[in-house]
Amino acid sequence: MAAAAADNLSHAPQTPRLLILHRFPTFKLSLFSSLATRFTILDPFSDPPHPSFSTLSKLARVILCVGPKPVTSEDLDRYPAVEYIVGTSAGVNHFDLAACRLRGIRVTSAGDVFSDDVADYAVGLLIDVLRRVSAADRFVRASSWGEGKEYALASKVSGKRVGIVGLGSIGSRVAKRLEAFGCRISYKSRKMHPHVSYTYYANILDLASNSDVLILCCALTDETYHVVNRDVITALGKTGILVNIGRGSLVDEKELVGFLVRGELGGAGLDVFEHEPRVPEELFTLDNVVLSPHRAVFTPESFAGLEELATSNLEAFFSDKPLKAEISLE
Amino acid sequence: MAAAAADNLSHAPQTPRLLILHRFPTFKLSLFSSLATRFTILDPFSDPPHPSFSTLSKLARVILCVGPKPVTSEDLDRYPAVEYIVGTSAGVNHFDLAACRLRGIRVTSAGDVFSDDVADYAVGLLIDVLRRVSAADRFVRASSWGEGKEYALASKVSGKRVGIVGLGSIGSRVAKRLEAFGCRISYKSRKMHPHVSYTYYANILDLASNSDVLILCCALTDETYHVVNRDVITALGKTGILVNIGRGSLVDEKELVGFLVRGELGGAGLDVFEHEPRVPEELFTLDNVVLSPHRAVFTPESFAGLEELATSNLEAFFSDKPLKAEISLE
Repeated sequence: MAAAAADNLSHAPQTPRLLILHRFPTFKLSLFSSLATRFTILDPFSDPPHPSFSTLSKLARVILCVGPKPVTSEDLDRYPAVEYIVGTSAGVNHFDLAACRLRGIRVTSAGDVFSDDVADYAVGLLIDVLRRVSAADRFVRASSWGEGKEYALASKVSGKRVGIVGLGSIGSRVAKRLEAFGCRISYKSRKMHPHVSYTYYANILDLASNSDVLILCCALTDETYHVVNRDVITALGKTGILVNIGRGSLVDEKELVGFLVRGELGGAGLDVFEHEPRVPEELFTLDNVVLSPHRAVFTPESFAGLEELATSNLEAFFSDKPLKAEISLE
Repeated sequence: MAAAAADNLSHAPQTPRLLILHRFPTFKLSLFSSLATRFTILDPFSDPPHPSFSTLSKLARVILCVGPKPVTSEDLDRYPAVEYIVGTSAGVNHFDLAACRLRGIRVTSAGDVFSDDVADYAVGLLIDVLRRVSAADRFVRASSWGEGKEYALASKVSGKRVGIVGLGSIGSRVAKRLEAFGCRISYKSRKMHPHVSYTYYANILDLASNSDVLILCCALTDETYHVVNRDVITALGKTGILVNIGRGSLVDEKELVGFLVRGELGGAGLDVFEHEPRVPEELFTLDNVVLSPHRAVFTPESFAGLEELATSNLEAFFSDKPLKAEISLE
């Protein structure tokens, strides 16, 4: 009896499960191809265009936002039935969260799917800047080694005082990794974490003054916009290193570039920039800087994890089950 | 009374404490400048030449060998009073150890002065190859990001199976660091280490077959020459990564280059080469390779540590006290 009932249910006609794909035109959908077998994807950039896009998009209950494309209040006006936005980044600063709260729209992020990758990359950038790995690679490829040219000495990783800004899912993984290098970890976050042994600083200026390296692992919010300003860079000092795997606007980029060009900061490892994909060209000639095109999260393994999370959250949403990695909008 | 005796002693005429500086002509002595205040340094390349070099060098009891310059049996014939060679590398494969044993000459290495730096660098090279950090930096500096060019996805660090060849002072530090990244560590060494939890393989072929990454941390000896040969590279496989921070001749470089050029090995991070400073030019165009000019040990901090070790060993030698980091020649 129970089996027969279940069988009936599985053959019941399904309400179309519509997802609006919110993306930049250049984004490759292939990364999420498995979703198309379970849901009806409404892609404003599909070629040929979906014949009923304007009708169906007004009925869709979900926006799947891929990449950092903003979801504005105007977008929400255009899609009036939306109840849920699936974010695919660790951060959700590109969503108008106040508008979501007002309309009772739920939001999920990528959770900690990318945390290991981003932490790995942060450590990679730090070693690269301190030990000048990319500069060494350039040196060899330019055949300068064989020509006996000079090569600047790098700086030791082990023993460095590392200040982590934001001890969340990513920051705590960075800390764990760098502890194994014999680095001395301290941090600044909204509040002190009672169960960690790292030194806590209530403000970033004190953290910078007591660190050789500053690693930005926090979300971009109104409070953290330009949290690394002229004073913080000055406190980090002439041999200090800044690593940013958070968001470009955590740093006053114009100030940063000035300090680096004048040799008043030791170096920087930057995966993010204020006006991506624009990178200040003054940095292109500096050997104490490692530049990366916002790729800290990009591994096939993390994309597979993201696809799994998005799929399970969508299934949960359409079955009224709890969502993972949901953002509190209170 | 005791103070007066000590005072007398400190004014006693000293036997000249002669060190032969054994170096390549390009080596900069400034790194060891503090030794010159305590010992008489006989430098065959000094300019102007030391007026009594040929006489004094026959009386010198110590060779201070800086860098990888070989000390041959002929060198020892030329300096017949030598009883002690101060090596400044972690490896001592550039010394004729058989000749040293025959003549009862003691040898010290750099011990573990460089171990943290080399381990840090090995991890840096690994992250760099897996996550394509240097390639990313090249991509940005070439302004390719702004132009929307394609960029290959990298591979995750966390969770990789890492095989370490040589679980000594450097290898065990590499293992400790990569454990914190969630890598699964196994190793091959002359014998099993009873107190570590990593999986042991008695031969490198089995290690390579069961690893995504192979990191060479062993000394170069007759047994380890070309220990990474065609079979081992084949076992590591098409997505496998090789990191070499040991010595170039641990690897059959010609085979390695062939595998990389044909795309039959996933990538390589190489700080050492068979015929330094010559680097096979076929590698210069590959984005899955990171090339470094034998700099894993070069930080100001490790040089300071080396100078301290050399100084204390020389003081100990001239006072008949035990040496640190002495190599057993039995």
